[in-house]
Amino acid sequence: MTFFDDLGQIKHGAEEILVETELVDRLKEGRRLRVKAGFDPTAPDLHLGHTVLINKLRQFQELGHEVMFLIGDFTGMIGDPTGKNITRKPLRREEVLENAAIYEHQIYKILDPEKTTVYFNSQWMAEMNAADLVHVAAKYTVARMLERDDFNKRYGSGQPIAIHEFLYPLIQGYDSVAMKADVELGGTDQKFNMLVGRELQKHYGQKPQVIITMPILEGLDGVQKMSKSLGNYIGISDPADEMFGKLMSISDDLMWRYFELLSFRSMYEIEKLKRDVSQGVNPRDVKFQLGQEIVTRFHDRAAADEAKANFVARFQKGCIPDDMPGVALDSVGGCLGIAFVLKGAGLTGSTSEAFRMIQQGAVRVDGERVTDRGMSFQAGSTHIFQIGKRRFARITVN
Amino acid sequence: MTFFDDLGQIKHGAEEILVETELVDRLKEGRRLRVKAGFDPTAPDLHLGHTVLINKLRQFQELGHEVMFLIGDFTGMIGDPTGKNITRKPLRREEVLENAAIYEHQIYKILDPEKTTVYFNSQWMAEMNAADLVHVAAKYTVARMLERDDFNKRYGSGQPIAIHEFLYPLIQGYDSVAMKADVELGGTDQKFNMLVGRELQKHYGQKPQVIITMPILEGLDGVQKMSKSLGNYIGISDPADEMFGKLMSISDDLMWRYFELLSFRSMYEIEKLKRDVSQGVNPRDVKFQLGQEIVTRFHDRAAADEAKANFVARFQKGCIPDDMPGVALDSVGGCLGIAFVLKGAGLTGSTSEAFRMIQQGAVRVDGERVTDRGMSFQAGSTHIFQIGKRRFARITVN
Repeated sequence: MTFFDDLGQIKHGAEEILVETELVDRLKEGRRLRVKAGFDPTAPDLHLGHTVLINKLRQFQELGHEVMFLIGDFTGMIGDPTGKNITRKPLRREEVLENAAIYEHQIYKILDPEKTTVYFNSQWMAEMNAADLVHVAAKYTVARMLERDDFNKRYGSGQPIAIHEFLYPLIQGYDSVAMKADVELGGTDQKFNMLVGRELQKHYGQKPQVIITMPILEGLDGVQKMSKSLGNYIGISDPADEMFGKLMSISDDLMWRYFELLSFRSMYEIEKLKRDVSQGVNPRDVKFQLGQEIVTRFHDRAAADEAKANFVARFQKGCIPDDMPGVALDSVGGCLGIAFVLKGAGLTGSTSEAFRMIQQGAVRVDGERVTDRGMSFQAGSTHIFQIGKRRFARITVN
Repeated sequence: MTFFDDLGQIKHGAEEILVETELVDRLKEGRRLRVKAGFDPTAPDLHLGHTVLINKLRQFQELGHEVMFLIGDFTGMIGDPTGKNITRKPLRREEVLENAAIYEHQIYKILDPEKTTVYFNSQWMAEMNAADLVHVAAKYTVARMLERDDFNKRYGSGQPIAIHEFLYPLIQGYDSVAMKADVELGGTDQKFNMLVGRELQKHYGQKPQVIITMPILEGLDGVQKMSKSLGNYIGISDPADEMFGKLMSISDDLMWRYFELLSFRSMYEIEKLKRDVSQGVNPRDVKFQLGQEIVTRFHDRAAADEAKANFVARFQKGCIPDDMPGVALDSVGGCLGIAFVLKGAGLTGSTSEAFRMIQQGAVRVDGERVTDRGMSFQAGSTHIFQIGKRRFARITVN
């Protein structure tokens, strides 16, 4: 393997690399690079959306580099200093350590513990005094900070930005200085903050880190980003059956996206699967392979096989159409009762017809017969609805 | 004396009081108020411009209140963290203490040491950690900070503002919290920063300080603000003759301004002097009184009498016209040779005529015969030029 192969692998699935020639130079040095990624200390309940980034970290490990998993506990321990957000209370030291333990448990399903170091930015930030922070703040201008998309919109529309919000990107950037990062990975929404890291490293006499942005993964609906609050997510601690079932509910288009961003298969293997489908292989069978790979990663092979068997049994092999209409319904952020879902998707002509069908035992959700006419669906959930033997729809409640 | 008399005295000469009703409430409490004024730690060479503020502090002392003289050494000890301004090196602790000693020596010519406490903001700022500063920064918004005149202009014209510059007004405001200030005095250019102090005090559960802005004193030219770098100043350590001479060189209009802002005479006395002049008293004699009062303050009565006598002798009583033309000449920031000054002011028709007059011994500056044809005048200086017995002009070189 040459560094060109390495570069090819690193680029695969990445949104943007800044600056690619600098990455090439570092790879050529042939040493173990220090690869940083930062995580919020408050929500250690990871879903597949987070793993896009973690998978890329794993790839760096496979290429021999060191992953620095940073838990941004400094700001978490400050809490929300405006006092406006009461739900965001300062975390106690014990909570931070507890969350860190959960993180480690979750990330080591993907990362190699031998090549991973967990950092807390309180290690250096707690020691920093006000004068030091003034020095850091001197390295960046107000105008450049206001170029950040969200700041720009808020300033432009007259919404307040508290001055400490300008300090957070600087602190995040200073973390790269303290950690001597060679590379930082983050979502596309982190690009600005990672660029601040580059600036600060230059000011502190370091070579600026290469930044790699990873795309934001779409949720099960294929439209909005995967997020716990939108309900369109697969948690990496989800039970095997649930994880498998959710993966089977995605559209064929989204399946290829998930292959690209979540599978550890090589680009060549994925291309081959695409050719297979274009030559007549049932996409559902390819989706089975995705489901089994992901469930194996977070559970094990036996659990993956069982989940697949359960799924097939539930849907009585042969009854699920290869393709079915996908429908999105708006619950105005709340939830929708089953009768409204069926009527809204056009599976029944009215809610009373829907209730009649339930009473007759003709309605199934994800293959399970519905008996409770009070059943309802949270915004963000996607299920396969079936009436009788022929009427199907994949419905997402938004 | 009632607090209404007190209020009247405090208002005299002040530019603005925010909020006057709050000041009335505090005066009514009848307790010793904590009156703050902040000074730069780098330039302890005070001139009369600075004393406008210090005189007002003295008045508070006379009314029984406590003056807190704050030396802002915290930022001075940080230096200019942008590293752009090389001349503004961080001050060492010893330099700060040295400067403080000079300050005390100078201010106690006006203030009562018994009712003055000198503070250094490093006392609380050096102990502040980065997290505390983040908390302070959370109390103010970017939009409000950008309302400050100078920030607004710089942002609007694309000139960079480093983010730490937003922290300085917050630190200055936090000083008021740490000092539990009841009142803060400052020049009109300090109004914004003092308002930040009010905001922060509210956030920290304190009653917001009353702020009093004092006008900026014009220099000897009567146009630009008194400033060492413009050269149009009277230093409070100037020798008695120089101080007296400079005061005699000001215009009659400026004299009344100086009476209002520099004299300890009551409003009634000053009104009486104005009436005297309108009824025929020579303004020069009133200017003598001003000169003697100021010189007595910074030297003593004997020195003031001697300075007056010297001045009168130099000008040979009766030879100086009561009024003479005032002329301003532009040296483009450098200095002007005497021949160019005389020609420029129209006292001679040409520079060669000027040199001839000097050779004949017909030229005087501030009453002293000029013998050196190479004599020159710095930008910012004002002198009385005389040719023969009848041609006079008060000339300011800018």
